Amino acid sequence: MIVVKVGGGEGIDLEAVCRDMAALIEQGAQMILVHGGSHETNQVAKALGHPPQFVTSPSGFTSRLTDQRTLEIFEMVYCGKINKGIVEQLQQLGTNAVGLSGIDGALWRGSRKSAIRIVENGRQRILRNNYTGIVEEVNTVLLGTMLESGLLPVLTPPAISFDGEAMNVDGDRAAAATAAAMRAEQFVILSNVPGVLLNYPDESSLIHQIKASELEQVSSEAAQGRMRIKLLAADEALTRGVSRVIIGDSRRETPIQDALNGAGTIIQ
Amino acid sequence: MIVVKVGGGEGIDLEAVCRDMAALIEQGAQMILVHGGSHETNQVAKALGHPPQFVTSPSGFTSRLTDQRTLEIFEMVYCGKINKGIVEQLQQLGTNAVGLSGIDGALWRGSRKSAIRIVENGRQRILRNNYTGIVEEVNTVLLGTMLESGLLPVLTPPAISFDGEAMNVDGDRAAAATAAAMRAEQFVILSNVPGVLLNYPDESSLIHQIKASELEQVSSEAAQGRMRIKLLAADEALTRGVSRVIIGDSRRETPIQDALNGAGTIIQ
Repeated sequence: MIVVKVGGGEGIDLEAVCRDMAALIEQGAQMILVHGGSHETNQVAKALGHPPQFVTSPSGFTSRLTDQRTLEIFEMVYCGKINKGIVEQLQQLGTNAVGLSGIDGALWRGSRKSAIRIVENGRQRILRNNYTGIVEEVNTVLLGTMLESGLLPVLTPPAISFDGEAMNVDGDRAAAATAAAMRAEQFVILSNVPGVLLNYPDESSLIHQIKASELEQVSSEAAQGRMRIKLLAADEALTRGVSRVIIGDSRRETPIQDALNGAGTIIQ
Repeated sequence: MIVVKVGGGEGIDLEAVCRDMAALIEQGAQMILVHGGSHETNQVAKALGHPPQFVTSPSGFTSRLTDQRTLEIFEMVYCGKINKGIVEQLQQLGTNAVGLSGIDGALWRGSRKSAIRIVENGRQRILRNNYTGIVEEVNTVLLGTMLESGLLPVLTPPAISFDGEAMNVDGDRAAAATAAAMRAEQFVILSNVPGVLLNYPDESSLIHQIKASELEQVSSEAAQGRMRIKLLAADEALTRGVSRVIIGDSRRETPIQDALNGAGTIIQ
């Protein structure tokens, strides 16, 4: 079992990911795809007059401020446009894909953090009315049923709280939870950089290998922004039993196969 | 098995439909929900600068002109906002709902009508680049698997063509095809009128019963606009083995139970 997460940043080539995934499934691989959609969500949110806002936690992680209206727009883009676009592409390639959000069948459940601490102008304050959380339970029965039926699950945030509320979750970490729960051997995270860069954005400074024991150090010294969350997701996957995490580049002809063959940053 | 279609017109109370459905499932009913989203799609399409356009067929049926951009917006609203909103509501009510479009798992397959004949200013012309079609095959295996797993399928257009293209289909007729394929005993169509009205919009002119043999006559004499398509869907369901179709009112406290108890227009 291989879980692949493809980001939603600018420049990401979903077509290549779909083609590569269809080819691997044709060869007998068992896979689950998780996708993002941040860039398009920002654009649609702006067009609809509700521009995106981001908040920073005291530990330096940035996340989307998700009020009810943002959550609606988020669902339109992630669950509507992008998820159905991917499923359509895969269907055209002969792969019987099924798109699900974390709400469907309570696939991704967890606690909502209804109040979070953020840093604003150097001062901390509490933010409420925020629909975000962490995936703590994965409906492995539903995923297993689909895989046994020969279907490829294509998963997307949001997730659902234990109280039944839709909530935004980080896609990389939700994918990590899925990889761990499904006992995946490998977890591939694709974005729009070649992997972890020692000197971002210098692509020649790619770090080819990271030992799990070095993750924290690399994260604090080399990784920035979104990459820190990817390393956190990698750490969570490895800690819960996934053998190998590869942070690879989506901007290639065969991004998944290349990552599995070692292109990118391998963490084990 | 009962298939319920709830429209996407103005004034439709999805909350009441969800509450009623959750109560019926709690009592042991086996159900499938199909929903629309036309009104909200029109609003979002306008806000995104791609206002809706409608075309009329020579036989007088009106449908949405669906180019690629319209299809994207359609997916955002139907598969994103509305589908996930319904699934979330049902989850909060304790019903384990799963939202799927007709693309997912090739649930609704059929032929795309890539060229359609329309009437414009009294003259006929051929319209191309239109992504619409008719559901000819329903993936009953996928629906059966979900129902056996105790899940409530919440279905929405678009469907998928035999060539793997997403295509807009009429929700009422897709629901009729689903009811027939799943051998449903009853098919309930809820919208924002009390049923078929002899003198639309006079709600006191409700027709309580229609025999299947009288459908064509009633359709040409009494029904207008969207109601004609509902009667066509009712006819298709009855012809393919569904015992009873009820066209009911969504604007009630318990819209599904009321329809099953005979409120609305019963066709059999």
